[in-house]
Amino acid sequence: MEAVDALPVHLNRKVAVEDFDLMAVEAENGNKQNGREIVLGRNVHTTCLEVTEPEANDEFTGDKEAYMASVLARYRKNLMERTQHHLGYPYNLDFDYGALGQLQHFSINNLGDPFIESNYGVHSRQFEVGVLDWFARLWEIEKSEYWGYITNCGTEGNLHGILVGREVFPDGILYASRDSHYSVFKAARMTKPAIINVNIGTTVKGAVDDLDLVIQTLEESGFSQDRFYIHCDGALFGLMMPFVKRAPKVTFQKPIGSVSVSGHKFMGCPMPCGVQLTRMKHINVLSSNVEYLASRDATIMGSRNGHAPIFLWYTLNRKGYKGFQKEVQKCLRNAYYLKDRLRDAGISAMLNELSSTVVFERPIDEDFVRRWQLACQGNIAHVVVMPNVTIEKLDDFLNELVEKRSTWYQDEKLRPPCIAADIGSQNCSCALHK
Amino acid sequence: MEAVDALPVHLNRKVAVEDFDLMAVEAENGNKQNGREIVLGRNVHTTCLEVTEPEANDEFTGDKEAYMASVLARYRKNLMERTQHHLGYPYNLDFDYGALGQLQHFSINNLGDPFIESNYGVHSRQFEVGVLDWFARLWEIEKSEYWGYITNCGTEGNLHGILVGREVFPDGILYASRDSHYSVFKAARMTKPAIINVNIGTTVKGAVDDLDLVIQTLEESGFSQDRFYIHCDGALFGLMMPFVKRAPKVTFQKPIGSVSVSGHKFMGCPMPCGVQLTRMKHINVLSSNVEYLASRDATIMGSRNGHAPIFLWYTLNRKGYKGFQKEVQKCLRNAYYLKDRLRDAGISAMLNELSSTVVFERPIDEDFVRRWQLACQGNIAHVVVMPNVTIEKLDDFLNELVEKRSTWYQDEKLRPPCIAADIGSQNCSCALHK
Repeated sequence: MEAVDALPVHLNRKVAVEDFDLMAVEAENGNKQNGREIVLGRNVHTTCLEVTEPEANDEFTGDKEAYMASVLARYRKNLMERTQHHLGYPYNLDFDYGALGQLQHFSINNLGDPFIESNYGVHSRQFEVGVLDWFARLWEIEKSEYWGYITNCGTEGNLHGILVGREVFPDGILYASRDSHYSVFKAARMTKPAIINVNIGTTVKGAVDDLDLVIQTLEESGFSQDRFYIHCDGALFGLMMPFVKRAPKVTFQKPIGSVSVSGHKFMGCPMPCGVQLTRMKHINVLSSNVEYLASRDATIMGSRNGHAPIFLWYTLNRKGYKGFQKEVQKCLRNAYYLKDRLRDAGISAMLNELSSTVVFERPIDEDFVRRWQLACQGNIAHVVVMPNVTIEKLDDFLNELVEKRSTWYQDEKLRPPCIAADIGSQNCSCALHK
Repeated sequence: MEAVDALPVHLNRKVAVEDFDLMAVEAENGNKQNGREIVLGRNVHTTCLEVTEPEANDEFTGDKEAYMASVLARYRKNLMERTQHHLGYPYNLDFDYGALGQLQHFSINNLGDPFIESNYGVHSRQFEVGVLDWFARLWEIEKSEYWGYITNCGTEGNLHGILVGREVFPDGILYASRDSHYSVFKAARMTKPAIINVNIGTTVKGAVDDLDLVIQTLEESGFSQDRFYIHCDGALFGLMMPFVKRAPKVTFQKPIGSVSVSGHKFMGCPMPCGVQLTRMKHINVLSSNVEYLASRDATIMGSRNGHAPIFLWYTLNRKGYKGFQKEVQKCLRNAYYLKDRLRDAGISAMLNELSSTVVFERPIDEDFVRRWQLACQGNIAHVVVMPNVTIEKLDDFLNELVEKRSTWYQDEKLRPPCIAADIGSQNCSCALHK
C-alpha cells in the first residue's frame, strides 16, 4: 500500500468548506500545480475573447458571422495543436463521436435521480442506466443492490462517496492517503467508525493503495464490517486495473461502500464526466435524510448533462472488455518503453507497477513543460500514457527532451536535480545516485 | 417580497449533508415532483439500452454498427417529439450551434480556476472569461473586483454562493424564502450575521423576492453591511429581468455577495451549465482557507466542461442585449396570452408580475401531464413560456387541454379543484370562486 497517511479529520454530521476539498482528496488527485507558484492571471481579461454586441446591420453585411467563423477556425487550429502536444494529463484524447453529432441540437438533461422518471422528456436515462449496469457488472454488484449515476467529474464522485460514508457513520473519522509513510491506522485505537478513501492510482505517481491490506488491517484492528465505509477513488486507473493481469481487484464482493471513476480519462469524452456506484442500502439512508425537503434527489447536482451518458454508452458498446484490454496493454507497453528510453538517456525515471504513469525529472524549461502540457510537482514531472499516446509521439517527445536537456545542462554549473526522495534512489540518475 | 420565510438554520463552520439541499434551495428551485409519490423506477433496468460486447466479426459484418445507428436514429426521433411537446421546464430548447460542431471532437476541460492558467492546453478559458466579463458588465461590477466561473448547473452556483457566504460569516444564520407568508426576519433579533438567499424568480410560481426590501429591512434591523451576505439565485429569471421594464435591478452596486444564473435555461445550451459571479474579496477568503491543501482551487468541481463556455459565448455574441430584450418581450407577451386564454376557458390561472411562468389548475390526466412535460406541485401545474414556445404551440396545447378537460369533468361527480390557496381567490375559477 502506498503511503496511506492517517488524516484523522473528526467528522460529526457537520462538514466545513475545507472538508469539501478534504473529502474530494483533490489535494492529491486534482490537477494542481504544486511545484510552482500559482498566480491569479488577471491578464486573462485582456487576452480573452470579448463578447461584442451585434450591430443593426450585421444580418445584411455578414461581418459578425465572418468574425465568429474566423475566431472559431483559429481556435480549432489551436485545439488541434494543443491536442497533438499533450502528454501530462490522464485524458484519452482519441475518440470519434461523429455518429453522435446529430444529438448536439437537443437540450438533454437527466435532472435528478437516474432511476426516477422526471416529467422532462428530453433525457437519456436509458443510456445512463445501460452504462451503470455495465459498471455494476464490472464491479460485481447485483442490479437490485446498487445505486449510481453519471457525474460531472471525479470531484463530484468523491464528494458523493464520502458524503454517503458520513451519512452511514455520522461520527466517523475520515482517513485518506498522503504520499508519505505514515500509517493509516494511527488513530484506529479510537472507537469511532472509519471512513476510508482508497486511491486506485494516485494522480502524480499512479500508485495503487492496497485495498485488500486496508480491509485486512481494519479487521485485525477489530473493526467489524458495520464499523467502516470504504470509498474507492478510481479516477483514471479504476477502469484500467480490471484489465491488468495480477492487479488487485476492485469489487463489491469485498466490503466496500462506493467506487467512482472518470469518464473523460481512460474512456475519452468531449466533456468531463464520471461514473459513481454505491450500494442501494446506503443511498436509501441518504435519500431519507433529505426527504423533509420533499426531495428524493440523491445526486449532488440537480440538472445533469444528458450527453455524457450517451458518449460513454457509445464507447463501451464499441470497445467492450476486449477493446479496453487491448488499449490497457498498449498503454502499459508504451509506458515501459518511455521509462526505459528515459533511463537509457540518463534521465531519472520511475514507473509504478500496474501503472502507465511515468514519473521523471522535471524539465527546467517552463516553455518545454507547457509545450507538452506536463503536470509537475516539485522536482518531478509525469507523462500519463493514454491510448492516444503512440510510440511515434513518445519518440518526438524524447528526442526533443534529450536535445533540449543537453543545452540546459551544458555548462557544468547546473546539474540535474536529485529526485531519489520522490522515486527511490535506484531510479535516480543524479550525480550522486547514477 | 414574496413569501420570505425565516429558515433559521444555525450555521457554524460545519454543514451537514442535509444542508447541501438547504443551501441550494433546491427544495423550491429544483425540478422536483412534489405533488405525487416518487417511486424508484427499478424497471429502468429492463427498459434501458444495454451495453453489449462487440463480437469478433463485427468489423466485417457491420451488424453492430447498423444496430447502433438504428438505436441512435430512433432516439433522435424520440428527442424531436419530446422537444416538440415540452412546456413545463424553463429550458430554451431553441438554439442552433451548428457552427460549433467542429469542436465536439476535442476534450475541452477548464479544470480549476478560470483565471489561473493550467498546463492542460485544451481549454476554453478565453471564451469563459469573455462570458464572465459580459455578466460582470450586466451586474455592474469591475473586472478587477469580481471572481466567477461557469458551473455545471444551478445547484452548483447556489452551493458555491452560500459556501462563500459561510466563509465570510462562519457563524452566520442562513435565511431562505419559502412560498408562504412568514417574515424572513423572525430570527433577526439574534446578533448573528445573516446569510440570505434571494430568489430571482421562484421555480413554481416565478415570483421575485424584493431585493431592495430585503436590504432595507436588514439595515432597519441594525445589520451593517459587514454583517450580512446576500446570494441572488437567478436560475431562470436572472437573465430575463434585466430586460423587463420596471423590474427591480440585480446589481453589484447594491450590497450583494454573489449572483448565479443558469446557462441552459433562458440562453439555451445542449447541456446544463450556469454562471457564477462573486466579489473578488470574498473568493480570496475561500481560496486562502483551502490553501493548506496546496490548492488555490476556488471552484466546487475540479474538471470543468470547456464546451459550455463556448456555447454561451456564441449565444451572447449572436443575440446581445437587444436580442435578449426582444425574446423576453415575446415570452412575456405569450405568457399573458396563455393566461388570458386559460381564464377565458374557465380554468384557474395566475401569472406573477414580471414573470413568464403561468400557474394553473393541474390536469388530472397524468398522460396529458407527461405528454406536455408539465411540472406539477400539489393541485397546480405550470408552463414556463420560453423563447421556443410560440403562439401556435400554445394554441395546440390549449385546444388539447380544453377538449380533454371537458371529458375529465363531464359527469358532475368530479369537479375542478379549488386552487385559491396557491394562486389567490381572484385567479381561481373553482365552483366556489368563479
